[in-house]
Amino acid sequence: MRVHVALTPAKPGEVALDGWAALVVDVLRATTTSVTACAAGCVRIIPVADADAAVERAALLAPAPVLLAGERGGEQIPGFHLGNSPLECTADRVGGQTIVLTTTNGTAAMRTAERAHAGALAALVNARAAAGWALAQGRDVAVLCSGEDGAFSLEDAVCAGLVVAHLTEEAGVDLSPAAAAALGLGAYYGPRLGDLREASRWARRLVRLGRSDDVDACLVSDNTDVVPVLGPDGIVPGAAIGTGRGQGPR
Amino acid sequence: MRVHVALTPAKPGEVALDGWAALVVDVLRATTTSVTACAAGCVRIIPVADADAAVERAALLAPAPVLLAGERGGEQIPGFHLGNSPLECTADRVGGQTIVLTTTNGTAAMRTAERAHAGALAALVNARAAAGWALAQGRDVAVLCSGEDGAFSLEDAVCAGLVVAHLTEEAGVDLSPAAAAALGLGAYYGPRLGDLREASRWARRLVRLGRSDDVDACLVSDNTDVVPVLGPDGIVPGAAIGTGRGQGPR
Repeated sequence: MRVHVALTPAKPGEVALDGWAALVVDVLRATTTSVTACAAGCVRIIPVADADAAVERAALLAPAPVLLAGERGGEQIPGFHLGNSPLECTADRVGGQTIVLTTTNGTAAMRTAERAHAGALAALVNARAAAGWALAQGRDVAVLCSGEDGAFSLEDAVCAGLVVAHLTEEAGVDLSPAAAAALGLGAYYGPRLGDLREASRWARRLVRLGRSDDVDACLVSDNTDVVPVLGPDGIVPGAAIGTGRGQGPR
Repeated sequence: MRVHVALTPAKPGEVALDGWAALVVDVLRATTTSVTACAAGCVRIIPVADADAAVERAALLAPAPVLLAGERGGEQIPGFHLGNSPLECTADRVGGQTIVLTTTNGTAAMRTAERAHAGALAALVNARAAAGWALAQGRDVAVLCSGEDGAFSLEDAVCAGLVVAHLTEEAGVDLSPAAAAALGLGAYYGPRLGDLREASRWARRLVRLGRSDDVDACLVSDNTDVVPVLGPDGIVPGAAIGTGRGQGPR
């Protein structure tokens, strides 16, 4: 099994994902929020490019109710029901709901992953379970970091590295150089995730915007086994994770 | 020999450097500029905290002529002779001169390194020579990344990793976890330094500021053997690099 990490956001057409299993990572905050929403009973998340597309998609889904969620530059989009905070994703607010989501960096990576044979979302909160999902696919695995404004994002690389560490528990794993680099970052920051509050520029920006509690909620390791999976109609909570090789279903 | 990398700027008092050899890294652009200035015949660089301190220091040195150099946020400080560009450091402009330098991130790390037993400057352009200087000290080695506004900086971590790679050519090197993480990043980005133009946020910012040529000049590997060394009166071109273990003097 080959394992690759895209440390920076892939340009369209740059990464051939045919036949691969892909995991999308946007620790601060799109994939953490999505994992948390699925864990809280949200039934579907539809990633879209921008606020206009979100409003259009909600109109297409009418009269079915949807929650509009999204941010730009870390701030909630005016008029939307939700921002991009895992702390908003309580069972009361998102249970049974469909969410249409647009974020600065994360949703673009989710769209890229749609080109893979199978795709799912990973964050620090579900890194082990996400690796289990990937192993269960029985395919080469690409971890796609969302990055920050097209550039390298430390917290995404660290999360990718922790996923890679779980993948290497299997025999016969062939790491790309970028995967090996991420593995080193994961090994260093994994035991000190709190250091990312200072070391990550995006974390510092969110703290300045008053989102310190969000940052804390995102910098938590493996508090859920939920793996949101990309499907033809959006992202849905993974139902059949584990085939005896990864996490078993709970 | 222990080898440690401070991936983010050390807080005062956080790193015990007693007895260590320290290398300061600020690829974009303070250490690249300083290395280039020394290679062009500059006789001394005095790092100071800010523009006011630079002007005061120049006054203390009067009537000896000095060049005031510095930037804030990537822009040259108004009224200064030089910004923080390696391309400005021609023999015509800096040969035989003393430079008083203040930059956003780099000069703070240079001040931190003054607490080490011995300190010098490293950049991509002199990574191999800087490692040779460090080996020649016969001490534990700390590589101090300047970072960006207190946070992780990809290009500094990559440079630190390349320095560490050269250090590990010696037997008996004990890498800290952060040094191992940097080593992985160096191994990945070392053969593709040009990718840092996109992957590094600070590189992108400099390009937006019209400093694309500077970025290109900084993302070059080992084009000089000059190693600026911290002394009691500022930073001076290393005169006695190499003791048979590292680079020989030229």
